Amino acid sequence: NDGSSLQSLQIVASSELNDPLLTFGSAVEVTGILKKSPSQKQPVELEADQIHVVGECNPLDFPFKIKERHGLEYIRQFPHLRCRTNAFSSLLRIRSEATTAIHSYFKENDFVQIHTPVITSNDCEGAGELFQIEPSKSENEEDENFFSVPAFLTVSGQLHLEVMSGAFSRVYTFGPTFRAENSQSRRHLAEFYMVEAEVSFTQSLEDLTKVMEDMFRSATEHVLAYCAEDVDLFHKHVTPGHKVSPEGHLFNFGTYPGSLFLITYSEAIDILNRSSEKFDFSTHWGCDLQTEHEKYLVKHCGNIPVFVTDYPYDLKPFYARDNEDHPQHTAAAVDLLVPGVGELCGGSLREERLDLLRARLEEVGLEDTYSWYLDLRRFGSVPHGGFGLGFERYLQCILGVDNIKDVIPFPRFSHSCLL
Amino acid sequence: NDGSSLQSLQIVASSELNDPLLTFGSAVEVTGILKKSPSQKQPVELEADQIHVVGECNPLDFPFKIKERHGLEYIRQFPHLRCRTNAFSSLLRIRSEATTAIHSYFKENDFVQIHTPVITSNDCEGAGELFQIEPSKSENEEDENFFSVPAFLTVSGQLHLEVMSGAFSRVYTFGPTFRAENSQSRRHLAEFYMVEAEVSFTQSLEDLTKVMEDMFRSATEHVLAYCAEDVDLFHKHVTPGHKVSPEGHLFNFGTYPGSLFLITYSEAIDILNRSSEKFDFSTHWGCDLQTEHEKYLVKHCGNIPVFVTDYPYDLKPFYARDNEDHPQHTAAAVDLLVPGVGELCGGSLREERLDLLRARLEEVGLEDTYSWYLDLRRFGSVPHGGFGLGFERYLQCILGVDNIKDVIPFPRFSHSCLL
Repeated sequence: NDGSSLQSLQIVASSELNDPLLTFGSAVEVTGILKKSPSQKQPVELEADQIHVVGECNPLDFPFKIKERHGLEYIRQFPHLRCRTNAFSSLLRIRSEATTAIHSYFKENDFVQIHTPVITSNDCEGAGELFQIEPSKSENEEDENFFSVPAFLTVSGQLHLEVMSGAFSRVYTFGPTFRAENSQSRRHLAEFYMVEAEVSFTQSLEDLTKVMEDMFRSATEHVLAYCAEDVDLFHKHVTPGHKVSPEGHLFNFGTYPGSLFLITYSEAIDILNRSSEKFDFSTHWGCDLQTEHEKYLVKHCGNIPVFVTDYPYDLKPFYARDNEDHPQHTAAAVDLLVPGVGELCGGSLREERLDLLRARLEEVGLEDTYSWYLDLRRFGSVPHGGFGLGFERYLQCILGVDNIKDVIPFPRFSHSCLL
Repeated sequence: NDGSSLQSLQIVASSELNDPLLTFGSAVEVTGILKKSPSQKQPVELEADQIHVVGECNPLDFPFKIKERHGLEYIRQFPHLRCRTNAFSSLLRIRSEATTAIHSYFKENDFVQIHTPVITSNDCEGAGELFQIEPSKSENEEDENFFSVPAFLTVSGQLHLEVMSGAFSRVYTFGPTFRAENSQSRRHLAEFYMVEAEVSFTQSLEDLTKVMEDMFRSATEHVLAYCAEDVDLFHKHVTPGHKVSPEGHLFNFGTYPGSLFLITYSEAIDILNRSSEKFDFSTHWGCDLQTEHEKYLVKHCGNIPVFVTDYPYDLKPFYARDNEDHPQHTAAAVDLLVPGVGELCGGSLREERLDLLRARLEEVGLEDTYSWYLDLRRFGSVPHGGFGLGFERYLQCILGVDNIKDVIPFPRFSHSCLL
């Protein structure tokens, strides 16, 4: 197997080519003649003239055993070797292909890709706990204040993309983001990947839900087309509990586009309040939706992705656009909830009106910190909006993988930073 | 202008559509009829029925003025607005297109894309000054040792890619890397992008130089084909001193492939020693090549890209493959030097032989720290090698941009982390 696919090449060799070093896990160079195989199992096989073991492998020390199916939790203990298992090499091919698919989607739809920075001096977006950076202690002590200001790892490229919305109609970014969340749960990583997009000259949330739905479909169709065998391995053997196949829950929606379920936050609260389900957190208009609520809403709508729109204004960050409605004051925000995962995407129209934005920033005392952000509205402001998609959650959703650590090459989380 | 290209759409309007808010820098929505233009300057123009100023812009406060050509240094002062200038929007389109081109090259050549981590516990590669990360001080004090081990921002994804070389024949990564270098020079950033690749079953450095040359050509051809107008703006107006056009120095090499200049380090030292040029740093066999030397070598070879191979063993990190030659002991390493920039790529075959690698790690007392890395050689080791390309330097090279801060959306460097 050379890693190009799940399929291995069958080598047929006479007994004099046998070599005690030819063990499971060893690396070999084989020359011979490729022939039509007499077996049903493979179309071709290689009749070997020469077999050379270039890298031996002691099968007693090697943590993976021939013909054994090792669980995801077991292989996770060997971050430097797990890519050599079928399950994880399939995952990595799928991840690579899904990345390609997402870039292709944006490229085909005339988005400009922006490398938003990892290091940022924005510290007050309130998106979660931050990592701070400093030059390593062992280095020059004078460097202590390397950037002259406190510097952090980004939690989102949104504000930097909004800068670009003043110059380009459609922009996106796809890169690592960070949260110093002290959690070892199945749902959290300290370093994870986000796809974020901003669209200018938006008129309503539909301009965003359309892009979210399109990207989701286009990426998934691409992955299913190009990684059929790898995806199949997951659905049949790695995550056999994943009953609802992506085909089932992603594509049976009737007419496309605009065919995903869409409910307002207020409707969602009604559904939850009427439900006989016992939730750990009770619900009322104005409350945040918990993962248990999101999962219930998905189930209630038929176990398919569902958009929830128009959240309470007070729940949303300063940049969310005011719907100026009464009596229930909402913002033009939207989440995409999906089976198994809950929130996959979150987005909003951004407040493009200078006076409203300034008033809200003044309320929280941030008008000076964000004077550059106000500038974007001072000079040729355009209505715009955008969203972010958690890439690992996307992979979990289509593959049915329960633990987020199993869909990223080198997981970083509380008390773990291996290699 | 909607940012899709350097070209603007000419709007023709009667005087009653005039509006005092219709100023340079404002955002407008225009409806009308697209017509063949009577002017030579543009093929079509829009005869306006309605013009709506959606975002006003006070031309006195706006830092850019109509019909004025602002220098790169001037616009750098406005990181949140400079994307609205012709020069920087061209740069961003070129950067986006070059990113696409590099991904396409690897995709077409069957490389698997790996998201190597930004946060890492590797601290002793010696590639330069490191940034260390900790949860922000304002957060929970218990988190002080969030990862249980010191954690740093990556300086290279190479070692993580080498992990993947045990499972895939060809892998690459394209993402941000970091150096806490206390320099405000034209050549250094604290956060910059690297393209890194690893190829398995290599036989010689040619397996690497072939990929480097191919990628360089393929990306540049793509950029010149898809961003002709934007590249032209740079060569004609932004960096008019950039006499050698990319067409000139990238493509006139005679037969392709394998047509780039290639000299050994020892030959390079001979050339430098024989030169009448006065260098700040004198040269002798065993010395590191400085930027002044690299630039001289490029000029000496005809101002075209040149490979320098087989550097002194003692200059190279522990992972470089020992050439086991005498009397001048070298390693199988290669740099690609290009006009205007100096070193663009650096690569090497990696030491795949367990005994040699272990001996070298023991010499420097790192055999325990890198026991996982030795494992890669213990279990099915394959000959492999790889290289890294500095993406900003690549853009500087093809555009002739002198200052690295002008080819990245949000430059981070010593004492500067704006937005």
